[in-house]
Amino acid sequence: MNTVHEIDEVRNKVKMWKREGLTVGLVPTMGFLHEGHESLIKRAVSENDKVVVSVFVNPAQFGPNEDFKIYPRDIERDAKLCECAGADLIFNPEPSTMYCEDASTTVNVKGLTEELCGVRRPVHFGGVCLVISKLFNIVTPDRAYFGEKDAQQLAVVKRMVRDLNFDVKIIGCPIVREADGLARSSRNVYLSEEERKAAVVLSRSLDGAEKALNSGERNASRIKEIISQKLNSELLARIDYVEVADSVNLKPVSGDIDGSVLVAIAVYIGKVRLIDNFTFRI
Amino acid sequence: MNTVHEIDEVRNKVKMWKREGLTVGLVPTMGFLHEGHESLIKRAVSENDKVVVSVFVNPAQFGPNEDFKIYPRDIERDAKLCECAGADLIFNPEPSTMYCEDASTTVNVKGLTEELCGVRRPVHFGGVCLVISKLFNIVTPDRAYFGEKDAQQLAVVKRMVRDLNFDVKIIGCPIVREADGLARSSRNVYLSEEERKAAVVLSRSLDGAEKALNSGERNASRIKEIISQKLNSELLARIDYVEVADSVNLKPVSGDIDGSVLVAIAVYIGKVRLIDNFTFRI
Repeated sequence: MNTVHEIDEVRNKVKMWKREGLTVGLVPTMGFLHEGHESLIKRAVSENDKVVVSVFVNPAQFGPNEDFKIYPRDIERDAKLCECAGADLIFNPEPSTMYCEDASTTVNVKGLTEELCGVRRPVHFGGVCLVISKLFNIVTPDRAYFGEKDAQQLAVVKRMVRDLNFDVKIIGCPIVREADGLARSSRNVYLSEEERKAAVVLSRSLDGAEKALNSGERNASRIKEIISQKLNSELLARIDYVEVADSVNLKPVSGDIDGSVLVAIAVYIGKVRLIDNFTFRI
Repeated sequence: MNTVHEIDEVRNKVKMWKREGLTVGLVPTMGFLHEGHESLIKRAVSENDKVVVSVFVNPAQFGPNEDFKIYPRDIERDAKLCECAGADLIFNPEPSTMYCEDASTTVNVKGLTEELCGVRRPVHFGGVCLVISKLFNIVTPDRAYFGEKDAQQLAVVKRMVRDLNFDVKIIGCPIVREADGLARSSRNVYLSEEERKAAVVLSRSLDGAEKALNSGERNASRIKEIISQKLNSELLARIDYVEVADSVNLKPVSGDIDGSVLVAIAVYIGKVRLIDNFTFRI
């Protein structure tokens, strides 16, 4: 697998491809790739002539008390997965390559970033917007692929791309789940055996909500109650948030649900914070 | 002169040029073009195969009590000047083309934007960063040209380009002056005949400072005094700021001057706020 660490190496490669008239897909990741990432890469491979996977644990999107230092890393395994999935290039820069010591530019999306995960993680989405802007300017992809598991990130990136006129098509891809329903996440590795079993409560609680919606339930509070009750039945689970939000502006829906909504949850299983969601259109 | 108003029209034109292997220069302006802009366009024409001039009075860079509504506009005259200077395309969008009603993305450069003009104009540079990001993503120029009259803008844009990895070379061009020394500015049109005469005090005050520096004066406070005394000798002039700043980080220099400094002033002549500056390297 061709893995490069310097910005100019990526730029030169992509420029060469573009001169040949080839299209380029980007899959931005923080590495420790799992089947979710694999599905993004495969989708990118099917839709573009060349695919770049960035592997960069971005310090700017971690808060001071978050898990930047211990975030799992395994670039050799990542390279194998990328190769098997058909990617053409891995961009794996050092933090010092991406951020000058006196870096002082910020990119933010107001509103969208203040809901849901933005409450608990106030610096997170600014860091995401910053690094995605940088990656877009470095790789200049035709298309970029993001998982729907990070639904808020996907909404924020779409908004940023629209507002800043990035010439990149943003493609959201379905959540990939373990056999028991747990959404794939690099952070699942933090879970003890007992916690791993308990973590299934996230997807189960959403299943219950989806079933209720399919049966005609329209009241947002009732949907949230169904989810919370299920989550509270698991002793190891502690709710961060359970929300029914407008799927475009992410504002909480009160009263009856109409149009397209994002049903999103964040739950601590022990000390590990996990998220999950689904979108429902009426 | 080929003038287009829609984003896709510019994009398609530039993509056609790039497919032919041509280089593209961008001169971003707010229109009402004068000899300063002309010098930027001519420089761009000499260094690029194709030149785009954007003419857009950007609402985002005006504060609530500033002159957005009355800012002078004359697209027909601008088109003639662009044509004579050798530009290939004018991009002249409507504000509603550039900004969605629910636009919510911000781009900012911390630090640099809080000095000098940033004190009086707290939203200005955020608006500049936003529109320049958008224009770079729309036009994807190889080079972009900015006047050194807006020295802080130039420093901010350079920092933003570095921090966000825009693949654009930023080129600063010397201030163009009237016969008596007044820096060319679209806002000079606001001056009454009497104010126009008085406005020469800006460049004269800087001439005095430069003379002192050339004679060996190194004390920043003394340089500021020389400028302020001259400005205060003009009854119609009211100082906004007189500053000697580090030319990279724009922080005020105290004590003795060393390295490269920006000597910058902002002065009200009647109600018209004018700026001027020079850079001095020791």
